Amino acid sequence: MWNKLIESVPNISEGRRRSVIDEIVAATDGEGIRVIDLHSDPVYNRSVITIVGRPEMIKAGIIRLVDRAVQLIDLNKHTGEHPRMGAVDVIPFIPVKRTTIEECISLSCDVGQEIAERFSIPVYLYERSATSIKRSDLATIRRGEFEGFAKKILLPEWSPDFGERRVHPTAGVTAVGARQFLIAYNINLATTDIKIAQQIAAAVRHRNGGLRFVKALGFSLADRGIVQVSMNLTDFTKTPIHRVFDMVAREAERHGVMVVGSEIAGTIPRSALIAAAEYYLRMTGFSKSLILEERIEEALSEDS
Amino acid sequence: MWNKLIESVPNISEGRRRSVIDEIVAATDGEGIRVIDLHSDPVYNRSVITIVGRPEMIKAGIIRLVDRAVQLIDLNKHTGEHPRMGAVDVIPFIPVKRTTIEECISLSCDVGQEIAERFSIPVYLYERSATSIKRSDLATIRRGEFEGFAKKILLPEWSPDFGERRVHPTAGVTAVGARQFLIAYNINLATTDIKIAQQIAAAVRHRNGGLRFVKALGFSLADRGIVQVSMNLTDFTKTPIHRVFDMVAREAERHGVMVVGSEIAGTIPRSALIAAAEYYLRMTGFSKSLILEERIEEALSEDS
Repeated sequence: MWNKLIESVPNISEGRRRSVIDEIVAATDGEGIRVIDLHSDPVYNRSVITIVGRPEMIKAGIIRLVDRAVQLIDLNKHTGEHPRMGAVDVIPFIPVKRTTIEECISLSCDVGQEIAERFSIPVYLYERSATSIKRSDLATIRRGEFEGFAKKILLPEWSPDFGERRVHPTAGVTAVGARQFLIAYNINLATTDIKIAQQIAAAVRHRNGGLRFVKALGFSLADRGIVQVSMNLTDFTKTPIHRVFDMVAREAERHGVMVVGSEIAGTIPRSALIAAAEYYLRMTGFSKSLILEERIEEALSEDS
Repeated sequence: MWNKLIESVPNISEGRRRSVIDEIVAATDGEGIRVIDLHSDPVYNRSVITIVGRPEMIKAGIIRLVDRAVQLIDLNKHTGEHPRMGAVDVIPFIPVKRTTIEECISLSCDVGQEIAERFSIPVYLYERSATSIKRSDLATIRRGEFEGFAKKILLPEWSPDFGERRVHPTAGVTAVGARQFLIAYNINLATTDIKIAQQIAAAVRHRNGGLRFVKALGFSLADRGIVQVSMNLTDFTKTPIHRVFDMVAREAERHGVMVVGSEIAGTIPRSALIAAAEYYLRMTGFSKSLILEERIEEALSEDS
């Protein structure tokens, strides 16, 4: 089993041509790097490719992916509902096993430089890798999209972090960066009043004065007769899931509404669940070494 | 990494002579079996050896352990505070990774038969492997200890499950069985009144009408100015830790006392913590495949 792992979730601007998507995915797989999930959306005309790899191997796989994408995708012919600025639109790196955000930042710089030099694609560092506050937000970088970038790239504040001030004619520009694992977390409420979900979303999200690493919206799930507070937890190591749950439940109570359940969309790191258990069980002196499987793995790895 | 694992925690009647203990531990280690913890108690004159192994290899390691113990321990010369009936007193098998209690029951029968045939030690199957209700409780089997067993073994109801009705002259008799992982779990209460801890222990434990797989006692931790409900959860898959915590907290509340914390003594299986998180976060549609690390392991093991 691989000891240290980084996840990467490149988004490519192709969600319709099966053979193109397959070819790009096939090029990515290799020694020490594996595609573990693929989600293609024809309406967005975009595919989200989830990769895990050993820190020293993941760069080579990403470069292979970009190489194929540049050859097979022409943004001049691309239409879709989702905003995009590059054939490979965005490449985030996420620490998932015995790796740190610092390692991912360093990797993103390395990969960004290589993409600029090898493919003549301008690269913007975003999120935790960003070189200015303005560039940390992907949506801000992407504003204007492929079509608008010829002008945008000439603005003094939009000089790329790597590469020339010249948009690649078919592959556009690419954002590369490090971020924490994002947990998509939804809490369902026993009411049909969407205003309650929207008020709670506003109360808990960072933008309106709530928790630092929470984005939230209120939705109606009319067919189920309930409403939903739909959230992205952008750094569960600092704003933990149990604090989010408790705050939503408390706000719901204030409206006289019950929480009927919560759901993970995608996946959740094990450590987020362990931290929730530790919190609710009011554990003192808890450490990973109290977990049976950790103890076993430690013992078995000592001499292997 | 090993894919399927069974744990075994043989207790041997030697807690003082370091060289004897070391020799027995060294004999146990081998291909597909590893000693991961050793706890020797000189007052008890007893050692608890924690082993993990692949299902098909663990029997050989246990037989090597019994072989050395029979050669090196003579119960006629053994004194200690802890009751004992055998040089190897008890051998439990516990499913810990992709193994079931049924596999452990089957293994215990196999090992029990081999011990009886190879070493002429009478074997009693206990806990989930027991052939009668009376024999499921280890303390009941052990009553009378090594010294009393010459007579006890002749009683009709104490005929051994494997081997002759004749106690081994130096190694006594051995209990072998399957059980679930035991979680030692303590909850601390902000009071110095031990009666409150004792009343709560009585309320939650099986013996007095409480939860099916809970044993509990109330203790005073005088130096810390608190009391403790000290519990063994004997099957956390059926009586989960969060239900136990909630019940103790509710009972404490009834006495006007706060829970100040809880502690794991030893280790806790990861799945017990995940189940607690799932419960408190009121998750719907939760499954292991939502856990990032499970998804990654699955993807990486597909072609290895």
